[in-house]
Amino acid sequence: MELKKILEDKSKESWEIYLPNLSIDCVVFGFHDATLKVLVLKMKDSLVWSLPGGYVLKEESINDAASRILKVRTGADDIYLQQFRIFGNLNRSEDFFKDYPDTLWHKQRFVSIGFYALVDFSKVIPKVDELSTNCEWKSIEELPEFMMDHRFIFDKALATLRKQLVHKPIGYNLLQEKFTMPELQKLYEIILGKKLNRGNFYRKMLRYDILNKLDETRKGGAHKAPDLYSFSIEKYRKALKNGLNENW
Amino acid sequence: MELKKILEDKSKESWEIYLPNLSIDCVVFGFHDATLKVLVLKMKDSLVWSLPGGYVLKEESINDAASRILKVRTGADDIYLQQFRIFGNLNRSEDFFKDYPDTLWHKQRFVSIGFYALVDFSKVIPKVDELSTNCEWKSIEELPEFMMDHRFIFDKALATLRKQLVHKPIGYNLLQEKFTMPELQKLYEIILGKKLNRGNFYRKMLRYDILNKLDETRKGGAHKAPDLYSFSIEKYRKALKNGLNENW
Repeated sequence: MELKKILEDKSKESWEIYLPNLSIDCVVFGFHDATLKVLVLKMKDSLVWSLPGGYVLKEESINDAASRILKVRTGADDIYLQQFRIFGNLNRSEDFFKDYPDTLWHKQRFVSIGFYALVDFSKVIPKVDELSTNCEWKSIEELPEFMMDHRFIFDKALATLRKQLVHKPIGYNLLQEKFTMPELQKLYEIILGKKLNRGNFYRKMLRYDILNKLDETRKGGAHKAPDLYSFSIEKYRKALKNGLNENW
Repeated sequence: MELKKILEDKSKESWEIYLPNLSIDCVVFGFHDATLKVLVLKMKDSLVWSLPGGYVLKEESINDAASRILKVRTGADDIYLQQFRIFGNLNRSEDFFKDYPDTLWHKQRFVSIGFYALVDFSKVIPKVDELSTNCEWKSIEELPEFMMDHRFIFDKALATLRKQLVHKPIGYNLLQEKFTMPELQKLYEIILGKKLNRGNFYRKMLRYDILNKLDETRKGGAHKAPDLYSFSIEKYRKALKNGLNENW
């Protein structure tokens, strides 16, 4: 079915079940092949891409809404979601639907709540929903053109991740259970947007005392097999309470 | 006029001019007499206190709405406002208005956007609006009982301030133009919720190179008159871009 027909079919029910003027957009990050990726959709009959988004049911908390939306639109379930900013300028989305009737649900003004999600890449199998033709991981270094202000929302999510790297369990959620120090360093480098000194990084990470060195190595590379680590969850949570930065 | 009458009078117009289901609550911080204070209102016919709040006009950005609300409800103008969190649980406020008719604007479900504001205490003259009997500064150590989830909103604002102390111009907005090192240290101690070592604090602050030592001292105390400082705005902004913490 073409997009126009689907939207018009959904419009009437949407006015009945959702809170008007309020939407949710999700920025889902995953880490794979030494690259930070984001989950994006391509809407039917559209040349541009979008973040997975949706609306809040009249009898639903915004956190429950974000989880439900992500599951329906991408198949991603049971993941770490965090609200990070609200996008409340005028004319964020109204123009996008200018060729539709004014009664269309999607054409009203929406104030959108941005959530970011950090997922173990290997555990999410993207699923195409009824509004989309594609649901894919894209490297944050090669992002496609986005609809509306979705690029701005993505940029703010990445900036938030950068600031929160010292407060939130970002490494824990993005990496697989077992990882190497070069992988952890690469993740920090991508999020912080700069190269880090290997020696300093190792020293600081070990000083936090949040990693378990495992009795295993990563096999298969051309170089000496690097040691594998896992997070010591309890110590990690405790350290994050104080912030993973130098104390005052 | 009693509160019930005022609310019922306002209800009809509110349905016409505001976005439904969306509100704004502001946590306004000021620093005075070595105490961090917050601006609170007492509604007419009410025993509990509230944060200054209001609604978003249909043709208004959320940032403009927050500024307008703060001005109307407290008289505070032209101040640093920052959204920090959205409060979107069910039954945040509905019960509070349970004795009113269901058509009352204020009785609907509201998802509320929290803003915090940092003001120069000496420049705000609290003004009582038509809904309130009081508009006062209260020390954060002696807060009164709040209505609805306003205490929770306050707690989240303070927690945000604590985390953002390394990224945002918090000192600059809260202190008067000229201040002493003990005043700056006291502000950091209150926000961080712990005593800091005087020598370490001075050393770190001076190392950031964001302060101008003035050729003046604070007169009037029993002790040796302490030196006055001001922020070097340009250096301060530059330092904040990297975060006022140790670099990786």
